[in-house]
Amino acid sequence: MNKKYVYLFSEGDGNMRELLGGKGANLAEMTSLGLPIPQGFTVTTEACTLYYDDGEQINDSIKDEILKAVDQLQTISGKKFGDTEAPLLVSVRSGARVSMPGMMDTVLNLGINDEVAATLAQITDNPRFVYDSYRRFIQMFSDVALGLPKNSFEHELTTLKNNKGVQFDSDLDAEDMKYLVSRFKEIYFGLTNKEFPSDPHEQLFVAIKAVFSSWNTQRAVFYRRMNGIPSSWGTAVNVQEMVFGNMGDDSGTGVAFSRDPATGENKLYGEFLMNAQGEDVVAGIRTPMSIESLKEVNTSVFDEFVAVSDKLEHHFKDIQDMEFTIENGRLYMLQTRNGKRTAQAALKIAVDMVDEGLLTKEEALLKIEPKQLDSLLHARFEDTSLKNANLVGKGLAASPGAACGRIVFTAEKAVEEVKNGPVLLVRNETSPEDIEGMAVVQGILTATGGRTSHAAVVARGMGVCCVAGCSEIHVNPEQGYITIGEDLKVNEGEYMSIDGNTGNVYLGQIEMIEATISGDFAKVMSWADEVRTMGIRANADTPKDAQVAIDFGAEGIGLTRTEHMFFQAERILAIRQMILSQKMEQRQVALDKLLDMQRGDFEGIYRVMHEKPVTVRLLDPPLHEFLPNEEDDIKTLAAEMDVEVDALSEVVEGLREVNPMMGHRGCRLSVTNPEITKMQARAIIEAAINVNKELGLSIVPEIMIPLVCEAPELQYVRQIVTETADEIIAQSGVTLKYKVGTMIETPRAAVVADEIAKHADFFSFGTNDLTQMTFGFSRDDAGKFIPTYQSKNVLERDPFEQLDVEGVGKLVKSACEAARKTNPKISLGICGEHGGDPYSIEFVNTIDLNYVSCSPYRVPIARLAVAQAAIKQK
Amino acid sequence: MNKKYVYLFSEGDGNMRELLGGKGANLAEMTSLGLPIPQGFTVTTEACTLYYDDGEQINDSIKDEILKAVDQLQTISGKKFGDTEAPLLVSVRSGARVSMPGMMDTVLNLGINDEVAATLAQITDNPRFVYDSYRRFIQMFSDVALGLPKNSFEHELTTLKNNKGVQFDSDLDAEDMKYLVSRFKEIYFGLTNKEFPSDPHEQLFVAIKAVFSSWNTQRAVFYRRMNGIPSSWGTAVNVQEMVFGNMGDDSGTGVAFSRDPATGENKLYGEFLMNAQGEDVVAGIRTPMSIESLKEVNTSVFDEFVAVSDKLEHHFKDIQDMEFTIENGRLYMLQTRNGKRTAQAALKIAVDMVDEGLLTKEEALLKIEPKQLDSLLHARFEDTSLKNANLVGKGLAASPGAACGRIVFTAEKAVEEVKNGPVLLVRNETSPEDIEGMAVVQGILTATGGRTSHAAVVARGMGVCCVAGCSEIHVNPEQGYITIGEDLKVNEGEYMSIDGNTGNVYLGQIEMIEATISGDFAKVMSWADEVRTMGIRANADTPKDAQVAIDFGAEGIGLTRTEHMFFQAERILAIRQMILSQKMEQRQVALDKLLDMQRGDFEGIYRVMHEKPVTVRLLDPPLHEFLPNEEDDIKTLAAEMDVEVDALSEVVEGLREVNPMMGHRGCRLSVTNPEITKMQARAIIEAAINVNKELGLSIVPEIMIPLVCEAPELQYVRQIVTETADEIIAQSGVTLKYKVGTMIETPRAAVVADEIAKHADFFSFGTNDLTQMTFGFSRDDAGKFIPTYQSKNVLERDPFEQLDVEGVGKLVKSACEAARKTNPKISLGICGEHGGDPYSIEFVNTIDLNYVSCSPYRVPIARLAVAQAAIKQK
Repeated sequence: MNKKYVYLFSEGDGNMRELLGGKGANLAEMTSLGLPIPQGFTVTTEACTLYYDDGEQINDSIKDEILKAVDQLQTISGKKFGDTEAPLLVSVRSGARVSMPGMMDTVLNLGINDEVAATLAQITDNPRFVYDSYRRFIQMFSDVALGLPKNSFEHELTTLKNNKGVQFDSDLDAEDMKYLVSRFKEIYFGLTNKEFPSDPHEQLFVAIKAVFSSWNTQRAVFYRRMNGIPSSWGTAVNVQEMVFGNMGDDSGTGVAFSRDPATGENKLYGEFLMNAQGEDVVAGIRTPMSIESLKEVNTSVFDEFVAVSDKLEHHFKDIQDMEFTIENGRLYMLQTRNGKRTAQAALKIAVDMVDEGLLTKEEALLKIEPKQLDSLLHARFEDTSLKNANLVGKGLAASPGAACGRIVFTAEKAVEEVKNGPVLLVRNETSPEDIEGMAVVQGILTATGGRTSHAAVVARGMGVCCVAGCSEIHVNPEQGYITIGEDLKVNEGEYMSIDGNTGNVYLGQIEMIEATISGDFAKVMSWADEVRTMGIRANADTPKDAQVAIDFGAEGIGLTRTEHMFFQAERILAIRQMILSQKMEQRQVALDKLLDMQRGDFEGIYRVMHEKPVTVRLLDPPLHEFLPNEEDDIKTLAAEMDVEVDALSEVVEGLREVNPMMGHRGCRLSVTNPEITKMQARAIIEAAINVNKELGLSIVPEIMIPLVCEAPELQYVRQIVTETADEIIAQSGVTLKYKVGTMIETPRAAVVADEIAKHADFFSFGTNDLTQMTFGFSRDDAGKFIPTYQSKNVLERDPFEQLDVEGVGKLVKSACEAARKTNPKISLGICGEHGGDPYSIEFVNTIDLNYVSCSPYRVPIARLAVAQAAIKQK
Repeated sequence: MNKKYVYLFSEGDGNMRELLGGKGANLAEMTSLGLPIPQGFTVTTEACTLYYDDGEQINDSIKDEILKAVDQLQTISGKKFGDTEAPLLVSVRSGARVSMPGMMDTVLNLGINDEVAATLAQITDNPRFVYDSYRRFIQMFSDVALGLPKNSFEHELTTLKNNKGVQFDSDLDAEDMKYLVSRFKEIYFGLTNKEFPSDPHEQLFVAIKAVFSSWNTQRAVFYRRMNGIPSSWGTAVNVQEMVFGNMGDDSGTGVAFSRDPATGENKLYGEFLMNAQGEDVVAGIRTPMSIESLKEVNTSVFDEFVAVSDKLEHHFKDIQDMEFTIENGRLYMLQTRNGKRTAQAALKIAVDMVDEGLLTKEEALLKIEPKQLDSLLHARFEDTSLKNANLVGKGLAASPGAACGRIVFTAEKAVEEVKNGPVLLVRNETSPEDIEGMAVVQGILTATGGRTSHAAVVARGMGVCCVAGCSEIHVNPEQGYITIGEDLKVNEGEYMSIDGNTGNVYLGQIEMIEATISGDFAKVMSWADEVRTMGIRANADTPKDAQVAIDFGAEGIGLTRTEHMFFQAERILAIRQMILSQKMEQRQVALDKLLDMQRGDFEGIYRVMHEKPVTVRLLDPPLHEFLPNEEDDIKTLAAEMDVEVDALSEVVEGLREVNPMMGHRGCRLSVTNPEITKMQARAIIEAAINVNKELGLSIVPEIMIPLVCEAPELQYVRQIVTETADEIIAQSGVTLKYKVGTMIETPRAAVVADEIAKHADFFSFGTNDLTQMTFGFSRDDAGKFIPTYQSKNVLERDPFEQLDVEGVGKLVKSACEAARKTNPKISLGICGEHGGDPYSIEFVNTIDLNYVSCSPYRVPIARLAVAQAAIKQK
């Protein structure tokens, strides 16, 4: 049997979203519900894919199917293309699987030509409406199908209005419209050297091709990339009999939501215009009226609409975003879709619908987009204050939240100034030495660097608001000011505000609102916790992070990065002393200093986490990250440490690496420098013993060995850890259990997971590094080509944002299976940034990981996403 | 049933090498052949592994087995430990699976004590021999088992000889020896504060433990690393009844080969000493006699030895390296093993043994160590001339061969000076800009950098001799001289010589001998070609390389790296122009220049290769490799290219990468810069068309796309290639077939090979990069930790030298299986450096690759290794 590429609305249903697109599936569903729908047909998304496979051609067999569907539509409607008695006009609209508002093209009034117009003028006795429709069609068709410049036509319209001394389109009469039609056709001929096509069938095919082609316009590609929509999905095309809101004063058109999409309040929300077509509502030419006023204009239509809205909401069990048209006093539904809503509204609607008995808790959980919660998890600007704010620049929204403070230009200054109130750190770009400053500021603003720059990555990890790569800014730290654009100058110490959700940069102060989880949000989270099977942990390096994680509902810490603790001023000095020590005794002195500091760090974290699991990762980055690179910095440090500049340079040079990502780091440091590992193991174990005594707890520390790629390596490092730990425990005379596990973050570790699992109490998949090595994409460098890859449709998703299920995911899955075979008791988790990404969470739920671990500020998102994954998998 | 850890010689056989070690297995085999072997038993290699697993302890059950074997040996020999009538003395020797000469420990005469000595003196009526044996035992036991300093004992012996005014040990009498025994025991007590152990059983267990421990001495670990022997193998221990070559003038000891191991000539080769124990022959205290002289000393023993030698050679079908002892006129065989031999000898012996009917051709092929052939494939120093050479330094043997020439310090000077005769390039380290110079010199000597430094890797690829990292050298290019060590100064233009096989650096000229394949070598190669199933290709970038490859028997080119061609002076200018072009038209001008050059390159290669397959890889390295990094170089280039320094710096800065290995390179360049790919595809296709016309051939070019990690990427680049190629072919009006394939060198490509294979005519596994990414080992940086890993037994093999079968190999294997499922016609090869490594070849033969591709100078090694793999797999 041949595949079917064209479906009448009456042949489809709401479940055929993938094939018919969202709009087509819903039109079919509404048809089957018996609602007043102008009939039509849908050309499938598969036809779109084929269109591209065939080199942007609609093949003959699909053309035949379309012609057959046109015939059927003619029968249903009792109208015909080009007919002199009952001519058929149609709209042609795109409709992808998921809504991409405004991204693709629409043609209305298709089928009109001179004869049809004359006939319609006679039938409707409303020539103004007819020629208005005609001129709109010429304009839209020219724009959409042939890309002719819109303003050539707009200019003509404006000229005419000016000549006639009128303000609104509605002030033009039938003759004016007729005049415009003839002018528009002349313009068309002038631009294309061809007559405007008068054959409705020809018009239809051109329009369908145009909609298919609109799937790959720059803005559509960009939108998909931003929203993680695969280009392979394609768009469907809906061909629907036209109804006319511009047929007179008893006609009209409008859009409405079944509830308030901003607040979630359960009342109709929307607007309409009488004697207008859809675009007029949006275009803002006349001010539309609130949907409630429809009651007064036409009570029976309003009542019918309320009933339809109710029916649709009950049917789709979600807030509906509807388009309708009234033609000569009769209501037609043109479209419905689940309404986009704010995070606040999404939570309220979910809770209300459960209270109303419309949804079960599980259904309600599935209606909330986890990522949307992000906007509720960070401090944000107060609305009124924001409206009056002075926007001065725009960068990349690198780490969410909002921040307001006095600007400083160095990390040291930040640490000092923060005592006097909130500060923003403004730099060209940040580097590891700035860590301490970055941790204390309200927000970070950089002039260069992208979403994966140091500033962005560290800020996200810390939950600090960040706007990166705001190229209008020039930072002059020596002169003590920044310039923004051509002539704005802001001095150090003056107030600025940044919005990490939009990338907006403001001058001055804006009032802030802090984030909490309460009310509807808390209720929804509790439902999520009831249903989810995977655990939720957070990546947290400090007691402060740990407290945020607990407040947001984390059940443990999946990743404590010990190195972040090393970057603080006094510590970096100690670690530098350790690196520069020529002799083991010198080195031991430095290590002893670090031991005291680290023990204190872990004690602080344990005091917050109590007996909740805490996984501490041993030192991971290459040692050169702790040393300066630039000649001047080396000189300064040499003086500070009282060593020869040459000697220090030599150490720096000796540690320099060509590909540090794949260099001397992770457990490789433990193999070459066991003394560092011993110090860290000691700090972890002693801290647990101390806090157990202090608070009467039974903490079970989890020690994680990074970057393992073979079993003997893990065995070797594990032995260093256990020998150290067992000795301390024996000496202290207490009982203390502890676990030793490993990151799985090299492809080889995944491949030989069965062997490695024999020596590990737990695995944590470090999918950031695993993605880098599996693809061979250096995260620091891939920004140069990933955007091109996405714009050329060569890469569907950014694998650093959404776990690459086909490649990296396959490795993770087989590693889990292999590990459980040789060590059925092993605990498996994920602690890469994917641990907080809903798409990735859905995948790891299918392979039954024990927990996901993510940034503290993503914990509520993960709780919801994990619950959704569990529900979907049932 | 319990595992058996101890075997009598009469219980084992020659096939039990893995369990009994080489020596133990051969002693068992000789026992079963009925040869005169002093009996004994072997403690297995598995006991050694257990010894380490148990924390360097021999467990009780193995101890019991050993005691039982001692009892059985006592029954067989009719002697007993510590017996006052027939005391048993034994030797305790190590014996691993493969011979590790001199690497591990031996104890002779074990079982002796004061009573035993007295008894033996009485029985033998030869007290001098007895006390000589006794003092030797104390000395060896103290050294081997307890690590006491040898020279404490040697000093006592020397003192005694001086006091007595004699020269040789044999001039000492029984009383002298007795005196030494008592002194040695005093020394032992002085060093250990314990009495020397007199219980033979106690002596035995201490000695066995000592042998096990000797498996992990620094030198043994080092030897294993050099020879790729896994530490997990362990060593066996052989306990054997002593026979005595030092019992008088009718006793003696010797070593002999059944053929000449240097030339392969079929005659006994060896030496012996009468009235001596084994170590005396080696120690050179007296000059041993040639084995032929034994005929005169004791004809019947000589005849018996010849018969035994013959029997053993026929039995083991290989040249034998034998140790024997004559005790009171009776011959005892102590050991036999297959003899180590020179490459030349190996070939002659193989050919002779086939002629003699001793071996089939396939058996003969298995007797030759492929890697050994390397010494025959490069120019080498003439022996006599080498003996008189002036060795002045030592570096790493980075690329084999020998070279002699006048030294120059820059690549430009090399190009110029080579017109006047051979030159050596001497540099601190080389960089990509030196390529042109590196290609023309006889050899390369660097002061810094390891076996994987730029100089080493490029030199090996080019087959140019290289000694790297000779740290004694300081290069002063500006002053025009180098210094070697403290005070040797060599001026530019003076002669030096380097040996890439040993790392030796000589002052002055040494006579050279060129490599050819002829005679026995040619015959063996022809046998190899008859039996192998995998094809042999070479990695060759120039017509010269291609010719070497053909001469050495390559059947095609598996990898032509187009970027190597770009580094030549005029070309690098064109590619830099291309990179710096802001506008597409400018860029096209530069590309057109490159097109002409590349077309010429490919024509040259095709003219050599004719219709043999040539796989050309598209541009692989990141573009920044073509630009200078240092400020001064940037200034020079800016002037040269007539661009602003700042503009050039900006481009350089913009292209700089954090991890270039995983950066913007390979097919990623094709996606972002299709114009480069179009140029290369054009050059490859046009060259084939031109040479087809010129020589009347039907060349089928193979175009290889590097660094692919997903199917859409390959599809995209493939389309650029095919559109370009098809257009050229259509325009030229000829018929030309071509293939498009891809490297599999990212882990992800291996994981999704089934999808990628749908769009590829061939795969070539780039195991260098695949190893880097699978392990997360940057090859440029891993030198800092891999040696530590190996010395700590954490890594068994260097995965860049021998393919990591368990990890990388598993990916390669599953990729092959997946690829053949979706594309049964796909051709599969390997072109990483592993393609020339016998261990790796044996693995890839099991997964049935179509060919291996390696450096031209490795082709004969690969031919033999591939043949051996085929034979073994049968």
